[in-house]
Amino acid sequence: MNAEIIAIGSELLTPYRSDTNSLFLTEQLNRMGVEVVSKTVVGDDRERLTAAIALAWKRSDLVLTIGGLGPTEDDVTRECAAQALGRPLHSDSQLAQAIEARFRSRGVRMAAINLRQALRIEGAAVLPNSRGTAPGQWIESDGKILILLPGPPRELEPMFESCLPRLREKTPPSAICRRVLRITGLTESAVEEMVAPIYSRYSNPATTILAAPGEIQLHLRGFGNDSSEAQAHVDELFPKLEAAVGEYVFSTDGASLEETVGRGLVARQATLAVAESCTGGLLAQRITSVSGSSAYFAGGVVCYSNRWKTEWLGVSQEMLEARGAVSREVAQALAEGVGRRAGSTFGIGITGIAGPTGATPEKPAGLVYVALAGPQGTEVQEKRYLGEREVVRWQATQTALDLVRRALQQRGR
Amino acid sequence: MNAEIIAIGSELLTPYRSDTNSLFLTEQLNRMGVEVVSKTVVGDDRERLTAAIALAWKRSDLVLTIGGLGPTEDDVTRECAAQALGRPLHSDSQLAQAIEARFRSRGVRMAAINLRQALRIEGAAVLPNSRGTAPGQWIESDGKILILLPGPPRELEPMFESCLPRLREKTPPSAICRRVLRITGLTESAVEEMVAPIYSRYSNPATTILAAPGEIQLHLRGFGNDSSEAQAHVDELFPKLEAAVGEYVFSTDGASLEETVGRGLVARQATLAVAESCTGGLLAQRITSVSGSSAYFAGGVVCYSNRWKTEWLGVSQEMLEARGAVSREVAQALAEGVGRRAGSTFGIGITGIAGPTGATPEKPAGLVYVALAGPQGTEVQEKRYLGEREVVRWQATQTALDLVRRALQQRGR
Repeated sequence: MNAEIIAIGSELLTPYRSDTNSLFLTEQLNRMGVEVVSKTVVGDDRERLTAAIALAWKRSDLVLTIGGLGPTEDDVTRECAAQALGRPLHSDSQLAQAIEARFRSRGVRMAAINLRQALRIEGAAVLPNSRGTAPGQWIESDGKILILLPGPPRELEPMFESCLPRLREKTPPSAICRRVLRITGLTESAVEEMVAPIYSRYSNPATTILAAPGEIQLHLRGFGNDSSEAQAHVDELFPKLEAAVGEYVFSTDGASLEETVGRGLVARQATLAVAESCTGGLLAQRITSVSGSSAYFAGGVVCYSNRWKTEWLGVSQEMLEARGAVSREVAQALAEGVGRRAGSTFGIGITGIAGPTGATPEKPAGLVYVALAGPQGTEVQEKRYLGEREVVRWQATQTALDLVRRALQQRGR
Repeated sequence: MNAEIIAIGSELLTPYRSDTNSLFLTEQLNRMGVEVVSKTVVGDDRERLTAAIALAWKRSDLVLTIGGLGPTEDDVTRECAAQALGRPLHSDSQLAQAIEARFRSRGVRMAAINLRQALRIEGAAVLPNSRGTAPGQWIESDGKILILLPGPPRELEPMFESCLPRLREKTPPSAICRRVLRITGLTESAVEEMVAPIYSRYSNPATTILAAPGEIQLHLRGFGNDSSEAQAHVDELFPKLEAAVGEYVFSTDGASLEETVGRGLVARQATLAVAESCTGGLLAQRITSVSGSSAYFAGGVVCYSNRWKTEWLGVSQEMLEARGAVSREVAQALAEGVGRRAGSTFGIGITGIAGPTGATPEKPAGLVYVALAGPQGTEVQEKRYLGEREVVRWQATQTALDLVRRALQQRGR
């Protein structure tokens, strides 16, 4: 079974908004073994929307529309779907009564326009909306299904979840199993060289490499008649890829690098404090984005000024003058100083030039020193990251977190 | 003139990736007065892609495809576009020579598959790729234009920019002017009530309200035969909306709240330091995400532990015990303490429960105290934010930055 998603709304055709509902729907559909083969975005334009629904209905087994179910003149999905399928649209008396009752109970006079939401395509089942006023619709014919869903994610998600049991009955027994290997410290081409000779021998699971700043992901999708068969395909290849990439793998269950580090710190009853210059709080923010991080995060200092580096973290004035704030020595002193101040197992120090301002010929934008002080001593890495300010900052925090991850692994051995 | 965008790639049909290139293209096209009327995502599937290009070519004036121009078997855009337009595909000898030369210069033997990138649709002009190996193509016929662009944003963006002068010649003289009013401290419905009676009297410019956590945006789009006419329409309505919303407007030129605060601090030669508990570095990270922020950011402390609150920031042990770390008094003491430590004009203190862990019946998740200490004394706000951990953290930083913005405005008067 294949599916097609049509997202409706003129705001989705501006430079500011993109459709994200389809990611949720795709995830749910994939779990049932349903592949999404096309996505379309159209505005509140009757002619184009009718054509889009008609085309999708002709070529796909399952069509999902998102949005355009509100009460205003711009909300044309009901009319267009009815026209595309060649079915009349009726006012549903039960829906109309419910809408009127809702207004009455709030003591508000109902504008007639609200009755548009009571329009039902002939033969459609109504999908109640637990969190809003726009009901959805489910139309089935000739082995095909069309589902009209509302646009707001908090309304769409529970409504679509309520459709899953019925959808599962209609889909042939097939399943997709996904698993992701998350990697840091290698380039995309280096990972490709390590794993392509292995995964290219398998058509099931399918393997995709995705690259993000400071991270490479290997996505595996296994297909089968049921989820255990799909899982078995993934389970055969996954450990081979994991072994090939080795120590650069930081997560095999989807966990982020900060979650992986958090789990490791908890497991070893260790704590962490950070002193950041060029990353400006991003490292602390990533660590504390994990709920429960107060158990292992001892504190963070964003020390743009030299005064704090000396007064609070004990970096010597002489070193700052002789080596400069962006130097291997200052990174080390920051890591050791913040660990001492916090009384934590580990201390991280980061100093560098995030750019675009502040660069010099000797110290270009992207030059960053990352230090980790811990029970095994202090390690400092010198990095030259490429990219914009935020990309440099992000990569520096990846390096810092990965140093902690690796130190925890060594301690665990 | 209207445009249609087709993004190509199976990874864009997974739950993990969505097309973002189209936002860039939409912005560029809108500036020329070209409206995007439809967006489609298709996988690396010859039949569907050919059908999508053929349909777009039939109904739209300008068709842009994104991706599928690499050298592998999956890269089928050239073939599909040729088929959709009913034109043959030839090997371009100049392109082929350039590809061979590139490999020779790197001393690498070229696999034959790379010559796929030399295939050119009959009548197409080649668009050089300054940052990659995949050339684009420009096909014009019957007053319509098809442009094939590569997928990586850093390759697509300069290539499309190089197309702009030629596109401008082809587009009838019409322009769209956009301007955005950014607001914080009000709900969407409150803003709607303030501005709907005003903007609903204008069909040009068109006004859209978008809501994000801690922020409401009013987007105005003016239409005209040239940019000054479009601009004039926006200029008539914009100040009326700005006046209606008043002090809640933090930006009229697109600047973020942290940029607005940064400009204000620079203008008044003031500095800022922050002490964060529940926001965990997010506030410092936002402030320092602005290039040049070292001129006014004096430092940040992420003080999860009470020890740092007392030792470094001077919060008294008695207060922590009597009031609890999440209290009005501690927020105030943090703000004053960090300002004193940094010797800065302003100090911010934030303490609260970001959730989901750490909540109690008296102190529920979402309860946050935000304090600003400055020359006019110290102000503390008690907030109860709704939403997930990251949404609570974000809103708390909005409140903090807005306190600084307002204090700077008062000083400026």
